[in-house]
Amino acid sequence: MGKERRRWDDGKGIGLVTPQDFTFGTPGEGLILESGKSFGPITIRYETYGELNRDRSNAVLILHAFSGDAHVAGFHSPDDPSPGWWDTMVGPGKAFDTNRYFVICSNVLGGCQGSTGPSSINPETGTPYGMSFPVITIGDMVNAQVKLIEHLGIERLLAVAGGSMGGMQALEWVTAHPERVRSAVILASTARLTAQGIAFNAVGRNAIISDPRWNNGDYYGKEIPARGLAIARMIGHITYLSDEAMRDKFGRRLQNRETYGYDFEDQFSVESYLEYQGDKFVERFDANTYIYLTKAMDYFDLSEKYGSLVQAFSRVMGKMLVVSFSSDWLYPPYQSKEIVFALMKAGKDVSYVNIDCPYGHDAFLIETERQTPLIASFLETVARETTGRRSS
Amino acid sequence: MGKERRRWDDGKGIGLVTPQDFTFGTPGEGLILESGKSFGPITIRYETYGELNRDRSNAVLILHAFSGDAHVAGFHSPDDPSPGWWDTMVGPGKAFDTNRYFVICSNVLGGCQGSTGPSSINPETGTPYGMSFPVITIGDMVNAQVKLIEHLGIERLLAVAGGSMGGMQALEWVTAHPERVRSAVILASTARLTAQGIAFNAVGRNAIISDPRWNNGDYYGKEIPARGLAIARMIGHITYLSDEAMRDKFGRRLQNRETYGYDFEDQFSVESYLEYQGDKFVERFDANTYIYLTKAMDYFDLSEKYGSLVQAFSRVMGKMLVVSFSSDWLYPPYQSKEIVFALMKAGKDVSYVNIDCPYGHDAFLIETERQTPLIASFLETVARETTGRRSS
Repeated sequence: MGKERRRWDDGKGIGLVTPQDFTFGTPGEGLILESGKSFGPITIRYETYGELNRDRSNAVLILHAFSGDAHVAGFHSPDDPSPGWWDTMVGPGKAFDTNRYFVICSNVLGGCQGSTGPSSINPETGTPYGMSFPVITIGDMVNAQVKLIEHLGIERLLAVAGGSMGGMQALEWVTAHPERVRSAVILASTARLTAQGIAFNAVGRNAIISDPRWNNGDYYGKEIPARGLAIARMIGHITYLSDEAMRDKFGRRLQNRETYGYDFEDQFSVESYLEYQGDKFVERFDANTYIYLTKAMDYFDLSEKYGSLVQAFSRVMGKMLVVSFSSDWLYPPYQSKEIVFALMKAGKDVSYVNIDCPYGHDAFLIETERQTPLIASFLETVARETTGRRSS
Repeated sequence: MGKERRRWDDGKGIGLVTPQDFTFGTPGEGLILESGKSFGPITIRYETYGELNRDRSNAVLILHAFSGDAHVAGFHSPDDPSPGWWDTMVGPGKAFDTNRYFVICSNVLGGCQGSTGPSSINPETGTPYGMSFPVITIGDMVNAQVKLIEHLGIERLLAVAGGSMGGMQALEWVTAHPERVRSAVILASTARLTAQGIAFNAVGRNAIISDPRWNNGDYYGKEIPARGLAIARMIGHITYLSDEAMRDKFGRRLQNRETYGYDFEDQFSVESYLEYQGDKFVERFDANTYIYLTKAMDYFDLSEKYGSLVQAFSRVMGKMLVVSFSSDWLYPPYQSKEIVFALMKAGKDVSYVNIDCPYGHDAFLIETERQTPLIASFLETVARETTGRRSS
């Protein structure tokens, strides 16, 4: 979803991009985690697009959602079949205009797409961490990103931006590191998951750990818990769509037949779709990362951390844009409104739009047309104010 | 849920009740299924409450939902810890007043609570059917109930009533056997599942068949696919509640701690609840029945069967009461409205109420107070008209 099939050299995108790695820390040292543990070394996989300007004031950090990665736009090679996950939004003339901004995206700590996570080799043992990987939080992910930004020589970001779990990271940036961020774009996100959201994550984790191949997280180099992970993904997919989107997309159509065959070969299209998505996911995602990242999302709760949402947001130093989607029932609009009301109560500069569309939570990935002018003009305003302040 | 802890002899209920069995058919013969196959013998487990009147005109058939059984009210023995699943609604002076009506409830064909289903012994092999059990439909369940009603000497039921899958059966009764039913009560139900509903059922089935202990349905007398069945049930439970109900009931409370421990021992209350519900379910429910009954629900589609909902309901000969619940997102109110509009278009006598409450789909089991006067007065009207017609 959200990916258009195009060639790398069609002139519409950023062309080819090369992932890079940044490593810091030594065994047992590198980052003090929120749990109190010290952890290292940590490698962060990242990609950049566009050019950092001379005064290093045009950097935008994009924060990916649960199953995303550092590859937000462009192609890795000329024969790459599809561009990065948000290529519709990042590129020359796009919402995140790479002619104007230096865009960075990194895979999260705990991830499985190049950054250090449970599938990485523990240098102290020479084998993958598995479940000996420490429990990490949204705050830990962001603290690792702070190291990356420092490494890139950027003192203050023009913006942080993300949807879903990416929005959680953006909220963490503006509250834990307010002096490092001029603005934030929060899409389809929340300051804390609902009980229902936690419940869906819990069932996904249960599906994985119930797969005998999970083997307490020690499955690397052996058969992986593919069925458990696929089922977790199927549940996820239902929650990323909406009742209406599924009705429009699949309805009650059968996959291979015109009429009911009254046997178990009969499948509705929506069943085949979910099984396909589940199987595809298993090829690219690590089951332990599924466990660690969902746990990090469950834990995230700004009001718990700071006493209240208003107290949390009293720390914010930049402009905020909050966007929700009417049919998103996983991160429902009322949660975005809670963020907006708390920001207003704290006297902060916030814009809010609830986009009316049927795509559910996935809308932030696919609703390009209406997000683009919102985000483009928001970033332009922030950039203009930044330049204005410096030249006055 | 929906069960109150009380003693059998507190004078508030129907006291003790004894389940009964009705068997018809011989091997390979008994019921022509919708698939075209002939199937038998079939045993139907049922319970009755109250007395059948002299002209056999006061019989009400209650149709249970997916995980229900024939034991709708009362106690099986003096040391039974809890009454039947809808004891709040069935008994002397209750919505289904056993002082006035002869109430019948039977376990569905394909079930695992006394009626013939995949866990029953196939008399031709001497072993459980497992996946050799034929695919059955809501129509087949109702045709087996017709045999039971004939066996009880009842020509025409005063009412059929049920919630969820029970409502599907009630809709099947009034369209396939309109001459046998004077009225129907349809609670939290639908004339066809949404794509989202099919999707949740499909994931549940996948969780079961992915459990290696499922063993293609051949697990009787061996270790059962307990993890897969528990996960299917957890998914179900999320869909039976609502975002609001889960927030009110669990919020973001931790189960055993005051503050985050940042380890996997940490559990939110909602996680413990789901795991408890999953484990409890496994003790009383058969995994193959889960597969067969969800498939029957997926198949059910009155507009597919009769060309349109209006055509389906043009067959109805009695009064209809349709009740939906505002927070039910699994069988959403708009689906009840579709039923009501189609009944009106077909010129039928229908009353409709959408009860505003936060309990989600489970509301039909737990919202006793507001359902009672609705159902009681509906049944009274039907009973009065019946008597009136006969005495005139």
